[in-house]
Amino acid sequence: MAYSLGELAVRFGLTLHGDPETRVTHVGSLSTAADGALTFIAHTKLADQLDSLRSSAVILPAALAERSPVDALVSPNPHADFARIATLLHPPPSGPAGVHPSAVIDPSAQIDPSAHVGAQVVIGAGVSIGPRVYVGPGSVIGEGVQIAEDVCLVARVTLLARVTLGARCWVQPGAVIGAEGFGYAPEGERWIHVPQVGTVHIGADVEIGANTTIDRGALDDTIIAEGVKIDNLVQIGHNCTIGAHSALAGCVGLAGSSHIGERCRLGGGVGVAGHLRICDDVTLTGFTLVTSDIREPGFYSSGIPASPTAEWRRSVARLKRLDRAEGRQRKKEESS
Amino acid sequence: MAYSLGELAVRFGLTLHGDPETRVTHVGSLSTAADGALTFIAHTKLADQLDSLRSSAVILPAALAERSPVDALVSPNPHADFARIATLLHPPPSGPAGVHPSAVIDPSAQIDPSAHVGAQVVIGAGVSIGPRVYVGPGSVIGEGVQIAEDVCLVARVTLLARVTLGARCWVQPGAVIGAEGFGYAPEGERWIHVPQVGTVHIGADVEIGANTTIDRGALDDTIIAEGVKIDNLVQIGHNCTIGAHSALAGCVGLAGSSHIGERCRLGGGVGVAGHLRICDDVTLTGFTLVTSDIREPGFYSSGIPASPTAEWRRSVARLKRLDRAEGRQRKKEESS
Amino acid sequence: MAYSLGELAVRFGLTLHGDPETRVTHVGSLSTAADGALTFIAHTKLADQLDSLRSSAVILPAALAERSPVDALVSPNPHADFARIATLLHPPPSGPAGVHPSAVIDPSAQIDPSAHVGAQVVIGAGVSIGPRVYVGPGSVIGEGVQIAEDVCLVARVTLLARVTLGARCWVQPGAVIGAEGFGYAPEGERWIHVPQVGTVHIGADVEIGANTTIDRGALDDTIIAEGVKIDNLVQIGHNCTIGAHSALAGCVGLAGSSHIGERCRLGGGVGVAGHLRICDDVTLTGFTLVTSDIREPGFYSSGIPASPTAEWRRSVARLKRLDRAEGRQRKKEESS
Repeated sequence: MAYSLGELAVRFGLTLHGDPETRVTHVGSLSTAADGALTFIAHTKLADQLDSLRSSAVILPAALAERSPVDALVSPNPHADFARIATLLHPPPSGPAGVHPSAVIDPSAQIDPSAHVGAQVVIGAGVSIGPRVYVGPGSVIGEGVQIAEDVCLVARVTLLARVTLGARCWVQPGAVIGAEGFGYAPEGERWIHVPQVGTVHIGADVEIGANTTIDRGALDDTIIAEGVKIDNLVQIGHNCTIGAHSALAGCVGLAGSSHIGERCRLGGGVGVAGHLRICDDVTLTGFTLVTSDIREPGFYSSGIPASPTAEWRRSVARLKRLDRAEGRQRKKEESS
Repeated sequence: MAYSLGELAVRFGLTLHGDPETRVTHVGSLSTAADGALTFIAHTKLADQLDSLRSSAVILPAALAERSPVDALVSPNPHADFARIATLLHPPPSGPAGVHPSAVIDPSAQIDPSAHVGAQVVIGAGVSIGPRVYVGPGSVIGEGVQIAEDVCLVARVTLLARVTLGARCWVQPGAVIGAEGFGYAPEGERWIHVPQVGTVHIGADVEIGANTTIDRGALDDTIIAEGVKIDNLVQIGHNCTIGAHSALAGCVGLAGSSHIGERCRLGGGVGVAGHLRICDDVTLTGFTLVTSDIREPGFYSSGIPASPTAEWRRSVARLKRLDRAEGRQRKKEESS
Repeated sequence: MAYSLGELAVRFGLTLHGDPETRVTHVGSLSTAADGALTFIAHTKLADQLDSLRSSAVILPAALAERSPVDALVSPNPHADFARIATLLHPPPSGPAGVHPSAVIDPSAQIDPSAHVGAQVVIGAGVSIGPRVYVGPGSVIGEGVQIAEDVCLVARVTLLARVTLGARCWVQPGAVIGAEGFGYAPEGERWIHVPQVGTVHIGADVEIGANTTIDRGALDDTIIAEGVKIDNLVQIGHNCTIGAHSALAGCVGLAGSSHIGERCRLGGGVGVAGHLRICDDVTLTGFTLVTSDIREPGFYSSGIPASPTAEWRRSVARLKRLDRAEGRQRKKEESS
């Protein structure tokens, strides 16, 4: 598809600076972009990127418009408007309306006629699939699952019994939503399985990464609020709740019943222990371990950046000797 | 299904305190439970939960029976008996005996007539599947795999060549058991692939979480003993052994040839280096890294709880300066 | 298959020490090996392993040949030659040439007649599959994917649009290559999805572990160079590049746009923050967190080995008190 800058300016409410007939067909990076490419400069302070522009057009902040060497769309948030236009030029996976003949569909499932159900999909009893949903190949959808409009399950997604997905959710391949979590009652040396009878409710505009796992609730439900973004290989335990617009980077692990507030940001590899509460607007930097409630918004950390191994071994040895050192120091102070 | 408290008391050997005709149909949490719901109070010290009870019946310790506002089943281990009754009320996934027409089964596979093989399953040569096994949709079972009775593969489980699963194992979606592990011989700057000719043996009553991976042995086998419980996104390297009744929480990683004893508990995100041995009855708290043998039962840790980022940066800077500080201190002591 | 030592010596350019007619049928470990088994001793310093040899033959360094109690093949790199012979004796998964009738193949896909496409596979438009490729059951291959010769996709592998795989790559089950990474533009409290229009290019002889995820590039491509080995449950963000012959152990996470040099080794659970560069020949020990460029080859660490929990709690408390201790010390020094 090709769009003229004039069309895009009208459609997205942007100011045009240049030729309205210039056409763009795809997005590209500053350095590799070529004919028909649209790119963006996010901030005024990145003005020196203007020098390397090789695209047909650019989205940029107003302060840079005069200096642009190519036709420009002016935006108060160039990155966000770039994202919207990129979605127009590079739409998400889609397929013809209807059910592929190799899919196995329970007769009680209700599938909107505008939805696409791909090859080798399995859909259980009582499932409801809304308008324009894309169910990618190899997906398995358990009984009673409810999927709202415009959801995209890219491929090989597993949704287990009674999970609900809000409008416009995107789920990447290999994600498993609604598995039975880690619920056991100890009895002597044995663990007795506790059936997990809750499910998972996922709000609108949630995105879930590849091979991420979100367990169903034990008795109540696991709840992911609208707008939450979850990266790949993230583990979310039973009965967790995640507030609206929070973002979890790759390899994060939330133990059961941890509660994350709204607009939180969890860096890669963060771990949150169970049965605790993190308030709204908390940022956890990569590799942070949270073992108690966080009640104040702000930044928290416990990851340690790398050192050369020989130095680091000495630091660790000293850390473990602090006991003695501190005792000695205290003794000196007492005796002095 | 509905069961009367009288039936349940007889079936599970519990003492009834109340009306034997009271019927329960499902389990619920204390706060949301309603008509027909059964709940539990685990310990006498949680007696104040009695006040919020809204269920039809409760399982509780003897000391609380007199004070229960609803009909009660008395148990020495309310959580374990709750788990058993919950399994009766909410049985694991099941399906009709037989093989779904979309499944692809090698003619040499032996499948017990009482087993269920779901849609889009692929079963290789020489596979043996026992009575009442549930093979969920999209699962792939490699040649020579042996599955004992009452095993449940929820959906999209992969078992590779010659893996064996003991009775009553549960495997969640996306788990991969028996992949080739990380075995390479260095040659100059290259890595030469070393075929992994062992397999994986899994004992009875083992449960394996979603998207967990358990590699086959290089020459000998990887062995998971009976009763082990493994959460989601856990990585178990080639030739590991895990002793009976140990439990591994989410995101744990065991490098090749690490040996975990019996009744160990590994918290979330724990890492264990290769070729080492952890004795029985060891608990590793979340985010602990183990790099040498552990020979004494007990609790071990190396995770650091979060601090506000600014404070934490100062702590890390000081940790890395300990070298200098300690040298200065030593010098002072020598000169004094 | 059985091979005589004479044949193997010629085929792999090894010196035979013993009977050329001795036949081997499989490889085994030193302690369990039996009739027809071939094993190896890697280094001269492991000479005492000669005592426990129970195999039919052994590969070993020249210095040990005279002392071998069994027929021997002499190699300058016994482990690497063992790996090659093991691959001959235990070849990778294979299947009959052709496409299984249950597979769903777009008519525009070009599949070499010598390739095997297994049951329940889905192959999209414009895909190209080279000679002797093995596409295991349940795999999903998106439009425009290009797979070179002798690639093995073990089972249930997902390759998304336009991914390319070089010759002889191996991909284990559950791996997802080319999913949309974590690309969002913030707008107020919301995250706007940024379409990821790059793809993933993977060089020759790359191996990728079970349930590992490699995201497609945002604008440019994610690139994995030849000979790279990636273990299970590894996350590689959009636009990462990994240099030739690097090895990444299980549970490693690379944030977006991190660049790993050639011949690097990343231990289990290592994390690398985004937009940084690690030079060639860097080894990161397990659990290391990298948050800035590494410009010198060598070993780097930040993982802390486990201590008994009570001791560790005191160390952490002291670490967090270093602030005060150091202030006190400085004050003392100033006043003295």
